[in-house]
Amino acid sequence: VKVGQQHYRSIWRDGDVFIIDQTRLPHHFAVQALESLEDVYTAIRDMQVRGAPLIGATAAYGFALGLAEDNSPKGRRHAMQRLRSARPTAVNLAWALQRIDRLLDTQPPGDWYATALTEAERICDEDVAVNESIGMHGFEILRDVANAKPGKTLNILTHCNAGWLATVDWGTALAPIYRAFDQGIDLHVWVDETRPRNQGAALTAWELHNHGVRCTLITDNAGGHLMQTGQVDLCIVGTDRTVANGDVCNKIGTYLKALAAKANQVPFYVALPISTFDPNIRTGSEVPIEQRPGEEVIRVAGSDEQGEAGSVQICPTGVNAANPAFDITPAKFINGYITERGVLSRADLADIGN
Amino acid sequence: VKVGQQHYRSIWRDGDVFIIDQTRLPHHFAVQALESLEDVYTAIRDMQVRGAPLIGATAAYGFALGLAEDNSPKGRRHAMQRLRSARPTAVNLAWALQRIDRLLDTQPPGDWYATALTEAERICDEDVAVNESIGMHGFEILRDVANAKPGKTLNILTHCNAGWLATVDWGTALAPIYRAFDQGIDLHVWVDETRPRNQGAALTAWELHNHGVRCTLITDNAGGHLMQTGQVDLCIVGTDRTVANGDVCNKIGTYLKALAAKANQVPFYVALPISTFDPNIRTGSEVPIEQRPGEEVIRVAGSDEQGEAGSVQICPTGVNAANPAFDITPAKFINGYITERGVLSRADLADIGN
Repeated sequence: VKVGQQHYRSIWRDGDVFIIDQTRLPHHFAVQALESLEDVYTAIRDMQVRGAPLIGATAAYGFALGLAEDNSPKGRRHAMQRLRSARPTAVNLAWALQRIDRLLDTQPPGDWYATALTEAERICDEDVAVNESIGMHGFEILRDVANAKPGKTLNILTHCNAGWLATVDWGTALAPIYRAFDQGIDLHVWVDETRPRNQGAALTAWELHNHGVRCTLITDNAGGHLMQTGQVDLCIVGTDRTVANGDVCNKIGTYLKALAAKANQVPFYVALPISTFDPNIRTGSEVPIEQRPGEEVIRVAGSDEQGEAGSVQICPTGVNAANPAFDITPAKFINGYITERGVLSRADLADIGN
Repeated sequence: VKVGQQHYRSIWRDGDVFIIDQTRLPHHFAVQALESLEDVYTAIRDMQVRGAPLIGATAAYGFALGLAEDNSPKGRRHAMQRLRSARPTAVNLAWALQRIDRLLDTQPPGDWYATALTEAERICDEDVAVNESIGMHGFEILRDVANAKPGKTLNILTHCNAGWLATVDWGTALAPIYRAFDQGIDLHVWVDETRPRNQGAALTAWELHNHGVRCTLITDNAGGHLMQTGQVDLCIVGTDRTVANGDVCNKIGTYLKALAAKANQVPFYVALPISTFDPNIRTGSEVPIEQRPGEEVIRVAGSDEQGEAGSVQICPTGVNAANPAFDITPAKFINGYITERGVLSRADLADIGN
């Protein structure tokens, strides 16, 4: 996807490995080189890279860099353990490391570095291909809705960030939007700010704005009113986990938008790589919901009047806050699952699980 | 209602007229004397007082102060015009001024100041009585719901600020909560932060916390999840205007909570003084929705790390924001209208209109 006139991935190799430091967005666009295992460990731990697919890809490069520093069996074990500890609960991180580790078993130590590096690039390319495919299938939906209102702007609402910054390129929920924009469809995106961490305001708005896609930031409160008054043609969101019955776990607030979409006959789509489908959990009510620190609710982060990173406290000192990070959108509110295998129904998903 | 151990109204007379400077809440509790017509004009214009009933009461005192400065017919006209221009669209402001102005017609100029002062006090006392009555009627609902879950905490969700700070005392949506708390009901309030202006975080949390009512601040995104998981027994909100068919216009985001309440069988109540019922508008779709500056979405206000007033920008420079300030909750989502005349149904409201 583009930043200004230049095409970027969220991670790439050009001699060194480079990333975009996402902790400095949206106020500073800073490219950073990752030159060592420790650089990669820090980048993952400090969330300079975030989003499950991108964490996996970054860890894969980290494994290669670790082997460049020490390609003994001990060095290999150290690299694995160090990287895995950077974000212990990130599923894609462990998955990417294991994938490379198994491959190394078949090779002499002298080939380990080159093998890991090649595999890291393959992981990146596969992620891009999956997301590009999600974009193509989702594009067909957008095109059909746009064709039903010729001469008018297609208005899409999204929540949180499921864009290229969360993946290697394209994103999931935003992939169909980039595709449709590049194909010349007249579209506009309503961007939920997505409190408490404001990934919509900070990342989605930044991505879309830089690629040239017309977008408008709104509070999380506004989407219901916009749907009620006919200003939204379609919603697309990402997901952290989709379970056997089609219920979707995504960023807190997604459920409220799905309710409003249903009440106002606005189609509601979820974009996901099949790898995030979890047939081992039967219904959404069985998904554990992460409770994050109340401090994220109490203080809002952004840039201060000098353009530097800052924060403000929005409530009196001493007030408690609760911060459930995800909610469950029941399958009955979802019009379709946009995947790399096409737009699936709830029944199609069940078939994959069986 | 109490601040610490002391009882306060939001406006009172003790020699001078005093208010709480609400622009400094929640970080500073500052009492301010209003000594002149200009003091009152500034306090209303700069939103040191806000909330329709409180604006009306403050303007009434302002009229008296204006007459103390100049009790000629010209001085009377000037006071009227000056105060009315402080917040041109505030209905209660014009209503309070007219009420006093009509009364002055029956009196000699020498009695004008005393007449206006007495009437200002009557306006305040009437507001307190109305809200106290709302509190008593709403209390019965809370008591019944609490009785249905003996030994457990009653969990109430509210949006924005319809508390004593918006009125002279008690508030509307919060009046039943204060009443129930004072009666010893074990209760807890989920406080929506209410972006973009965060009146929930800054004012409702402050009010409840200072009165000693247990409360928890949440993002506007969280309420759906809380209702879905059985953590909310009842919602109560205020309203800016209720129209003939029972549709309610209230702070943006109210509609999303009403949808979630309906979907999860959580009772949803609206508290209102009958004076805000507008039978001349047939349905909610006819209510004009105020569009406020996008800047309120782009920058979040609060206190900085030194405890001083500050703000942060949450999105990239150049991104547009939309800021609809209210939304419409259709009557079908509302279980009852808590008024000074009792808890009314939609049919009862229609009778008042006829």
